[in-house]
Amino acid sequence: MQFRLIVEYDGSDFHGWQLQPDERTVQEVLESAIERLVGHRVRAAAAGRTDAGVHADGQVVCFATSKDLAPDVVWRALNANLPEDVAVRTADVVPDSFDARRSASSRVYTYRIWNRWVPSPFWRRHAWHVFKPLDLEAMSRAAARLTGEHDFSSFRAADCDAAHAVRRVLRSRMTREGELLCYEIEATAFLRHMVRNIVGTLVEVGRGRRSDDLATLLALRDRTRAGATAPPHGLCLREVRY
Amino acid sequence: MQFRLIVEYDGSDFHGWQLQPDERTVQEVLESAIERLVGHRVRAAAAGRTDAGVHADGQVVCFATSKDLAPDVVWRALNANLPEDVAVRTADVVPDSFDARRSASSRVYTYRIWNRWVPSPFWRRHAWHVFKPLDLEAMSRAAARLTGEHDFSSFRAADCDAAHAVRRVLRSRMTREGELLCYEIEATAFLRHMVRNIVGTLVEVGRGRRSDDLATLLALRDRTRAGATAPPHGLCLREVRY
Repeated sequence: MQFRLIVEYDGSDFHGWQLQPDERTVQEVLESAIERLVGHRVRAAAAGRTDAGVHADGQVVCFATSKDLAPDVVWRALNANLPEDVAVRTADVVPDSFDARRSASSRVYTYRIWNRWVPSPFWRRHAWHVFKPLDLEAMSRAAARLTGEHDFSSFRAADCDAAHAVRRVLRSRMTREGELLCYEIEATAFLRHMVRNIVGTLVEVGRGRRSDDLATLLALRDRTRAGATAPPHGLCLREVRY
Repeated sequence: MQFRLIVEYDGSDFHGWQLQPDERTVQEVLESAIERLVGHRVRAAAAGRTDAGVHADGQVVCFATSKDLAPDVVWRALNANLPEDVAVRTADVVPDSFDARRSASSRVYTYRIWNRWVPSPFWRRHAWHVFKPLDLEAMSRAAARLTGEHDFSSFRAADCDAAHAVRRVLRSRMTREGELLCYEIEATAFLRHMVRNIVGTLVEVGRGRRSDDLATLLALRDRTRAGATAPPHGLCLREVRY
């Protein structure tokens, strides 16, 4: 039977999702906890492979086992076995045909920016500290321009191996709550570093160093014309929709 | 001249505010940063001495120096010198007669409780994880009973050295936002462990193991009749009023 987990993690002390020799990764920690429960090695497949330092509170992870276990038992046992920077929010059984990554219809990410001259001891691991003032209205206008279907080559990492760069963005908005700016984006799928490259560009818009006309930037399909990649620790995978 | 700082810190990696031999404390880190700026050793006095693991985002700290410095220079230089788990929010000059602790008219603390069966990787250092369901209404009623002037002997740590236990509580309320409960209390002054002892008692009320009649508990003036001391990491000193 195949189980589906919704997983939360604080990415600060992980080398990202994916297994890597001699590195602490979420996949490795999760597969070890599952192995202690089911008695054999499993392969855990995630909806999105988060990079080192990136967080998640809605990552979806699937694994298969011949063991006949109730979802509630899986949920409790895994939480008892996991370190405190990973937690399993829910567990259920899905058909064998379900694929955490391919079956997803969209993903939601947020990116947090701490925008005050003084850094925040509390947000230091979960928000990018941008100390100069940012123009929220300009950033909001620019963010809104990204909704719809576009070629996102301008926001694609050099080592991205996707077949093409066309993605449909369902939602792209920037809000502020006190000193914290939150960028939220939902899309059918994402290119490598796409959110972080968009945020790096939006921050340049917010500092008045770039026009809010991201439509022109998209049309250039040239990564060298967009902003720098924002650091990983502001990014969080919030939800995967099916 | 005497400077007043508003200081934020993540208490997770500190042995509390107060200087202790061979321990990392907020006072030690702050006094060292000030020394690098003014060129001589200073004594930093805080409005409230937080225990190990307790956080602050509105701690008030004073220090005196013969150096003639602009508050803006002090603010920038200290933030440049401090580790990332401490930050100086503001700096200003106050009269020599100002005393961070004795001049305060009230203090505001919050205590956060993460109330879901599954622990939170994000809140693990800033909220107490209580996994069983809590009755918010009963806790709110109980919390409200603490407002006014009372003898708080029932909520006083055994080693508290205050002259008497009468304190005036200006505000005492419990709210919920999703899975996070937040207890907020403002009082003229606090006894040692008072907030954590109140929260430990409120959680027993929320679990239905104790009546919400805290007036009777106060009247007993007996620490052994109240609940257990809640752990330090949910507590945060939010504001000191003058």
